[in-house]
Amino acid sequence: MKGIITGGIVIFCSVMAGAQTNDTLMIRNIADEILKNSAAYENLRVLTKQIGPRLAGSAGMVKSESWGYELLKKTGADTVWMQECLVPYWVRGGKDEVIVQSGEIKKNLAVIALGNSTGSGAKGVTADIIEVASFDELEAKKDLVKGKIVFFNYHFKRSFVHTFRGYGDAVKYRGQGPSTASKYGAVGVMIRSISHGENNVPHTGSTRYDSNYAKIPAVAIGLQDADWLSAALKEKKMDATIKTYGYFKPDTTGHNIIAEWRGSTHPEEIITVGGHLDSWDNCEGAHDDGAGCVQTIEILRAFKAIGYKPKRTIRFVLFANEENGLRGGLKYAEAAKQKNEKHLFALESDAGGFTPRGFGFSASAEVLAKVKTWEPLLSLYGTAVYPGGGGADIGPLHRELGTPMAGLDPDSQRYFDYHHAANDVFEAVNRRELELGAVNMAALIYLVDQYGL
Amino acid sequence: MKGIITGGIVIFCSVMAGAQTNDTLMIRNIADEILKNSAAYENLRVLTKQIGPRLAGSAGMVKSESWGYELLKKTGADTVWMQECLVPYWVRGGKDEVIVQSGEIKKNLAVIALGNSTGSGAKGVTADIIEVASFDELEAKKDLVKGKIVFFNYHFKRSFVHTFRGYGDAVKYRGQGPSTASKYGAVGVMIRSISHGENNVPHTGSTRYDSNYAKIPAVAIGLQDADWLSAALKEKKMDATIKTYGYFKPDTTGHNIIAEWRGSTHPEEIITVGGHLDSWDNCEGAHDDGAGCVQTIEILRAFKAIGYKPKRTIRFVLFANEENGLRGGLKYAEAAKQKNEKHLFALESDAGGFTPRGFGFSASAEVLAKVKTWEPLLSLYGTAVYPGGGGADIGPLHRELGTPMAGLDPDSQRYFDYHHAANDVFEAVNRRELELGAVNMAALIYLVDQYGL
Repeated sequence: MKGIITGGIVIFCSVMAGAQTNDTLMIRNIADEILKNSAAYENLRVLTKQIGPRLAGSAGMVKSESWGYELLKKTGADTVWMQECLVPYWVRGGKDEVIVQSGEIKKNLAVIALGNSTGSGAKGVTADIIEVASFDELEAKKDLVKGKIVFFNYHFKRSFVHTFRGYGDAVKYRGQGPSTASKYGAVGVMIRSISHGENNVPHTGSTRYDSNYAKIPAVAIGLQDADWLSAALKEKKMDATIKTYGYFKPDTTGHNIIAEWRGSTHPEEIITVGGHLDSWDNCEGAHDDGAGCVQTIEILRAFKAIGYKPKRTIRFVLFANEENGLRGGLKYAEAAKQKNEKHLFALESDAGGFTPRGFGFSASAEVLAKVKTWEPLLSLYGTAVYPGGGGADIGPLHRELGTPMAGLDPDSQRYFDYHHAANDVFEAVNRRELELGAVNMAALIYLVDQYGL
Repeated sequence: MKGIITGGIVIFCSVMAGAQTNDTLMIRNIADEILKNSAAYENLRVLTKQIGPRLAGSAGMVKSESWGYELLKKTGADTVWMQECLVPYWVRGGKDEVIVQSGEIKKNLAVIALGNSTGSGAKGVTADIIEVASFDELEAKKDLVKGKIVFFNYHFKRSFVHTFRGYGDAVKYRGQGPSTASKYGAVGVMIRSISHGENNVPHTGSTRYDSNYAKIPAVAIGLQDADWLSAALKEKKMDATIKTYGYFKPDTTGHNIIAEWRGSTHPEEIITVGGHLDSWDNCEGAHDDGAGCVQTIEILRAFKAIGYKPKRTIRFVLFANEENGLRGGLKYAEAAKQKNEKHLFALESDAGGFTPRGFGFSASAEVLAKVKTWEPLLSLYGTAVYPGGGGADIGPLHRELGTPMAGLDPDSQRYFDYHHAANDVFEAVNRRELELGAVNMAALIYLVDQYGL
């Protein structure tokens, strides 16, 4: 083909070059706006330091909803509304404690009750500890479990490069550990925290009881104390007293906070971008998922600041109750289905405010191929495009309406140092990393808005 | 070509597949060894917490050299030796201070004297402050500078995605600011710290006096205090008293610590991998460059642990005096040239212990094309390959012998939060990020060892 260029190809190339150039300039413009003038970091400071924990049902939830509503209005959306949904209302109820002892030894472990778990009450549950490394070992020792406290000491695998694969591998012990042990007559469960961190901070997160078995108290132990306990149990038998106070209040009303910016030429086509507003009760929820919320709001702020006019309708959504119910995401999809809305695309940031590495897509091969052509534009800001990904809150939209979805995939190495733990605080978020996430999200939303999917 | 496969292509493909498979397995093996059993993080703890600052000439330098020598021996190199070089011996000499005042206002700023800068002595230098945003503004105001203290308030540009480009843009104010101001008769210099961080920690780093002009005291100010000062100067004139105590002792003896592992089939071809052992005196030098040192040692440990036998000779080098003289790197190249050694490749890690994103190469197009074919193997662990990069310590080898060189390019967003500042401590390094750097470096060294360049 060297030297042979037809007129048609010349026109095609110059049109393409024009589009690339405009897009390159527009995305550079977006990036400059965010990296120089972002409000994301200061918004995160307010959300984490002035509001703090905001588990579904709590006073923090209510405060955070007002904050999100006012901030999205101020930032300039056409319409902001609060979409009601019933949310579960789990309460920790007191200070979780585990005391282990054997003869002279008596030690308080760093623990936290698993989310949604049942309380032992102040009397506590006392029993001998039986340690197992896995469900397989539990199965092999099932005849020894009755009346005992089971200690699941499953190690988060360090060899996965992407830490979410290690999480996916280990988190079943949090979700299913309590009922699996209860099936064989255990009276309590302690799990090694689902983390590979270097500290002793325990990590909560929701557990799911199987209604066929008794609900038993369940806690997560800090990694250093889990190691200490495992070593101690090799020396001698020990018993533990677990004291937890968790219980459910009746379901209450929570809200998705939805800001809409109507499109100029295809207003009927909706692009959703969001994060979840709730957090666990033991932390500021800075990475999980304050980051995703302030990045979402930042995209609106930056678009407004540079005078962008979207072709399609963009919705900026702060979802309710991701952590222990997903009621916000379910409600959003249900309403979209009822109203027969046309949802073009949904994007979520819920993997921490770290340097972005890519976008994982759950979409058809055709859609993915189209998005792949944008990779050269995105890669200037650090992101690639690949299959597999999305977000818990936009998952129902994807499943119910077939909406293509993507998740921002930040560098994952530090996420499980903080996940669901008391150290997930504002200070753990780096301003530039947070902002670069918003830059890449805004760039992707811009491209989808311009060219559809 | 669909469906038409010649015998030759089949053989070629299966040979390639075999090599890819073996390399894939070997690199997986290396990664597992490092991610599961790495000693890098604990070695870094010892270097930073037990030895600490280790500027050329200091007692810390001597201690760190012994530490490196013993550790490399213990880790199993064939030979470890200390290569002597004369190093400069700059001493801070006291606690740097700046007091600004105007009428009622009197304030101590967070400052640190620039490395290699001259001391004012206890009497200090007192003069009116003149603020300039750039060299251009200094030039425009040159007639007003005589007898003043110049405050260079140049802002690190936030819009570069790779922060080292922002550093490259701003660092001239540290290097040339003092003499440029002195040329016009200034008696002291204060620069805005070369950082975009969110705190007030001042950042040192070497300055270079032009021998044509008087050497004047020079400090860096923390960013918050720089902003405060700039705002205050808009209200009224202020003067400052700078007290610094820096001076040079006579040059002294430092050492590159070199561990050699002889190759089995091409022992005459040398591959060098290293970092620099020295740090500034105001910090633990965890990211700069304790990380590069322990990653270098970790490669040797991991290769030994999995039973690897190198074809070529690998040298693991902890370089002396990168920060304020580069005498170690110069000596290493000089000796290599004198002995007519054949240096195949050199790799340095000196951009922080953060998640690796790539390797930047200074090499011929041919070499780069060969390395590019390894990108699919490296990308599994997070790194790409691109032109442009290397390291200060291996630069002389590259220039003198034409040795292809590369630098590990970690994610750059947090580096200038810590660079040359008191907060560059062990706790600022994440274990997994540090280890992933070592994984990728080891993989690249393995591939160069197997296939040459």
